Amino acid sequence: MLKERFSVIYSISGSRGEASKKAKDICIEQTVEFPEELITDSLIRNHIFGRVESLHKKDKNTCTARINYNVEVSGFELVQFLNLIFGNISIKPGIRLESLELSPSLLKIFKGPRFGRSGLRRLLGIKKRPLLCTAVKPLGLDSKRLAGLAYQFAIGGIDIIKDDHGITNQRFSPFEERVRLCAKAVQKANEKTGKNCIYAASINSPADEIIERARLAKGYGAGGLLISPGLVGFDTMRRIADDDTINLPILCHPGLLGTYVISKKNGISHYALFGQIARMAGADAMIFPNYGGRFSFTKEECLSIAKGAAVRMGKIKPIFPCPGGGMSLNRVEEMLRLYGREVIFLIGGGLFTHGTNLIENLSS
Amino acid sequence: MLKERFSVIYSISGSRGEASKKAKDICIEQTVEFPEELITDSLIRNHIFGRVESLHKKDKNTCTARINYNVEVSGFELVQFLNLIFGNISIKPGIRLESLELSPSLLKIFKGPRFGRSGLRRLLGIKKRPLLCTAVKPLGLDSKRLAGLAYQFAIGGIDIIKDDHGITNQRFSPFEERVRLCAKAVQKANEKTGKNCIYAASINSPADEIIERARLAKGYGAGGLLISPGLVGFDTMRRIADDDTINLPILCHPGLLGTYVISKKNGISHYALFGQIARMAGADAMIFPNYGGRFSFTKEECLSIAKGAAVRMGKIKPIFPCPGGGMSLNRVEEMLRLYGREVIFLIGGGLFTHGTNLIENLSS
Repeated sequence: MLKERFSVIYSISGSRGEASKKAKDICIEQTVEFPEELITDSLIRNHIFGRVESLHKKDKNTCTARINYNVEVSGFELVQFLNLIFGNISIKPGIRLESLELSPSLLKIFKGPRFGRSGLRRLLGIKKRPLLCTAVKPLGLDSKRLAGLAYQFAIGGIDIIKDDHGITNQRFSPFEERVRLCAKAVQKANEKTGKNCIYAASINSPADEIIERARLAKGYGAGGLLISPGLVGFDTMRRIADDDTINLPILCHPGLLGTYVISKKNGISHYALFGQIARMAGADAMIFPNYGGRFSFTKEECLSIAKGAAVRMGKIKPIFPCPGGGMSLNRVEEMLRLYGREVIFLIGGGLFTHGTNLIENLSS
Repeated sequence: MLKERFSVIYSISGSRGEASKKAKDICIEQTVEFPEELITDSLIRNHIFGRVESLHKKDKNTCTARINYNVEVSGFELVQFLNLIFGNISIKPGIRLESLELSPSLLKIFKGPRFGRSGLRRLLGIKKRPLLCTAVKPLGLDSKRLAGLAYQFAIGGIDIIKDDHGITNQRFSPFEERVRLCAKAVQKANEKTGKNCIYAASINSPADEIIERARLAKGYGAGGLLISPGLVGFDTMRRIADDDTINLPILCHPGLLGTYVISKKNGISHYALFGQIARMAGADAMIFPNYGGRFSFTKEECLSIAKGAAVRMGKIKPIFPCPGGGMSLNRVEEMLRLYGREVIFLIGGGLFTHGTNLIENLSS
């Protein structure tokens, strides 16, 4: 058994005394889940139990605990890894997972994104400027009209055109028909513009169909995939990212995951969930609602996602933060200052009316 | 396009005026996700938009909104169904999904549990009394020792013996070895007791292996499966429940799902998540932490799970609530009063020391 351990940083509500008790409880709850005093086996006590590495006051009512686990307990599988770091304690109020510090063997096992920032830039042929993404929408349009929009967006200079995340396989726009038409429309536009705009097909779908849909999308010429791990499971995304026969970049959508991040006391931080975990699970870009839009993320929370998307994690490539909503031409400068150039701006269809000005703006 | 609609009941924080605004926003956010005023297509306006059916004050700071959606938007797929009812609004604070009222076509599409209460009773050959479940643990024991425990539990009269949820495929107890030995141990005990005790193998595993692990478990003689949809995705569980070649009852574990239920203001209610949704997704029994144990669920929350597990949902069978933790002999009477006989008591290994008294107790 490897002795190697990795660390997880949690915020724990309560006084120092209470937090210390809760931290010790996490070490047991997340591993043996058994009365500690009844375990006499020294191998289990010394290696399987979690360990509180440090605990210190964060603010009046919160402590920061650093807890480490033996890598063997993760089984070197993402599903059990997630269970180990937050499975049962997700049910206990006052514990928030803040960040991960992976150890060598985990950094080797989890390949992360297939493309990452530089790979996606290479596919698109765009060296330095921020990337532009938009969605074909609204849900309810037929495939032909969605493809018409895709064509216009591609002609107008958008880099990545994705399905709106609610557009999946409805009878008014069945998956195969839509993907075929949209991919074709974008290819046609690319021939005209000489660019490499990508159409990313939403493949959120039944567990027994998702791989087939990914392959179909690729076959029809889609250049990327949209996946919501909250809906299909993080490891389903990881499995698709790892598949050499699919070999497409993945835009990760936060649908159904919001509840994890909206409390300061519970759940998982923006940094860990939308930065580190999405990245471990193979996302090439993480979509999230930008501050100042119709959602409630703060500027700091958005920035923390960008940080988690790029923090050093062995050979796991940095990925793009992809803030969406609340984006308008007069905010470009502010957004560039905040995110820098390593960002994908997910802009509303309305902005398209500005033509290519935005792209010129970003390139300058 | 079908005109059929189904309803979702949400709690919305705020005054009546604020809640009314938020309810209207949900109708747009969860469907077209597009400025309402820009949509002129009457088909979309009349059929795709969600609709506020009713809104009333629940208490001082909360309203109850009943919102309906066209079934077509669900694509008749569980993944998009979950996205439709809570995908994007999971990111908006102050909205909690309370319950579902499915319509005929959805009740027909979603088969729910394969066995349900009566099917599981039939497998076990137990007509009326509450069922008893326990877990082999702690994590860290080798497969032989886990199998030894399984044998003793089965001899002692336990009905369902499951892997502890953190025991998956670690090197100190690899999946195949453990499942083979545990299933064999339980079969051996059954030959002695003449009973039909079931061993439920934990198959939480990589997306590309989980079906194979389910089939392996069946092949080795496991009589049930343990699945955590928070880890592997709800539709993965549904897919396994629907698979005729697997054909095993499913114990559903709440790992990683806790965050959804621990706030009164956000997320999803215990009733909907651990009752209705788990059931739609094919669970035959839903494990949850009982009140009065080391977790924080209240008596009312636990009871609401039992209600969601049994509420009339077309032909979708009622399933067992499976409260765990905090269970001891002197609480049996209280628990029976609360849950009635249609329950699986998930009891700690320690209780096993009482021998078969507990079973005689429950049978009387």
